Amino acid sequence: MPKLWNETIETHRREVRHAILAATAALVAERGLLDVTMSQIAEQAGIGRATLYKYFPDVETILRTWHAEQIAHHLACLTEVRDQAVGPARRLKAVLEAFAAISHGSHGHFDTDLVALLHRDEQVGHAQERVAHMIRDLLAEAAAAGEVRVDVAPVELAAYCVHALAAAGTLPSGAAVRRLVAVTFAGLRPVT
Amino acid sequence: MPKLWNETIETHRREVRHAILAATAALVAERGLLDVTMSQIAEQAGIGRATLYKYFPDVETILRTWHAEQIAHHLACLTEVRDQAVGPARRLKAVLEAFAAISHGSHGHFDTDLVALLHRDEQVGHAQERVAHMIRDLLAEAAAAGEVRVDVAPVELAAYCVHALAAAGTLPSGAAVRRLVAVTFAGLRPVT
Repeated sequence: MPKLWNETIETHRREVRHAILAATAALVAERGLLDVTMSQIAEQAGIGRATLYKYFPDVETILRTWHAEQIAHHLACLTEVRDQAVGPARRLKAVLEAFAAISHGSHGHFDTDLVALLHRDEQVGHAQERVAHMIRDLLAEAAAAGEVRVDVAPVELAAYCVHALAAAGTLPSGAAVRRLVAVTFAGLRPVT
Repeated sequence: MPKLWNETIETHRREVRHAILAATAALVAERGLLDVTMSQIAEQAGIGRATLYKYFPDVETILRTWHAEQIAHHLACLTEVRDQAVGPARRLKAVLEAFAAISHGSHGHFDTDLVALLHRDEQVGHAQERVAHMIRDLLAEAAAAGEVRVDVAPVELAAYCVHALAAAGTLPSGAAVRRLVAVTFAGLRPVT
């Protein structure tokens, strides 16, 4: 087959795949995790059930894929935020703010259900580890610059940050999330 | 029936119930949540299967009961710790330390599984809320005494504390947990 034809097929497959993931995310957000069927996903994505089964074997696999892509997307956002900020303290603050905003955006029972389903997923664990490592490295850099306390190891401070900022998922407003970041950041200050 | 006889039966029932809960907790800790059967629980508790079914209909109900009692016990410990400390700042610190110690003690995949199973349990949610309310009230008291920042509402600071201290479940040692409490506490300091 000519190369162009292969590329067209590849593009088409990506588009169908994306439509399936988007349809599933919309349905789960609307109806809850346990009340979504393959038939509903096919209908919402505008494809036949037979086609859907060529892409994914079941709802759980679609959700796992969707969740893994969400996390990869969050990781890419955090990386971009990190690389745009200048100076260790600002880089750290920017990434913590972005992480809190992501936690705030993914609140509600929907995610709790999803986490319950997916928490044994190694891929998810791996991505969460990468976020923790990114924050750890930023903390080490900021500590070396005298901007963050040095009496506690960066890996422990990273665990503190990730957990404290997860509280953003329970907060009602963006203003409350900004206050949470300020409080969490205050815990990192060099001990005088 | 004479009163004494009734009391004997009641004591016996409590003892059997306790043996069932203890056996289940031991089995789950050893084998993981999804690999424990009613037969194993009966054997471990030293009773017949028929007797076990007179007390509980299934493994999940036993685990829910066990977890609810664990949380009630933790709540009682936190209350005792609170009532023994003198002064708003010390009371707050003592309760946060105890809460971190409890989080540290219940780490591991076992609890993650359990939380996944139980997270829709309203009783558990209610008990967690009571812990958060206790910490919120201690924060309000400490803020009124000038020991805690007043620019963020106690309810938001309580969410911060509960989430930050949950990191204790991932830490390797008691020393690391004490550092986590110190970092979390530093975030609460009055803004100068």
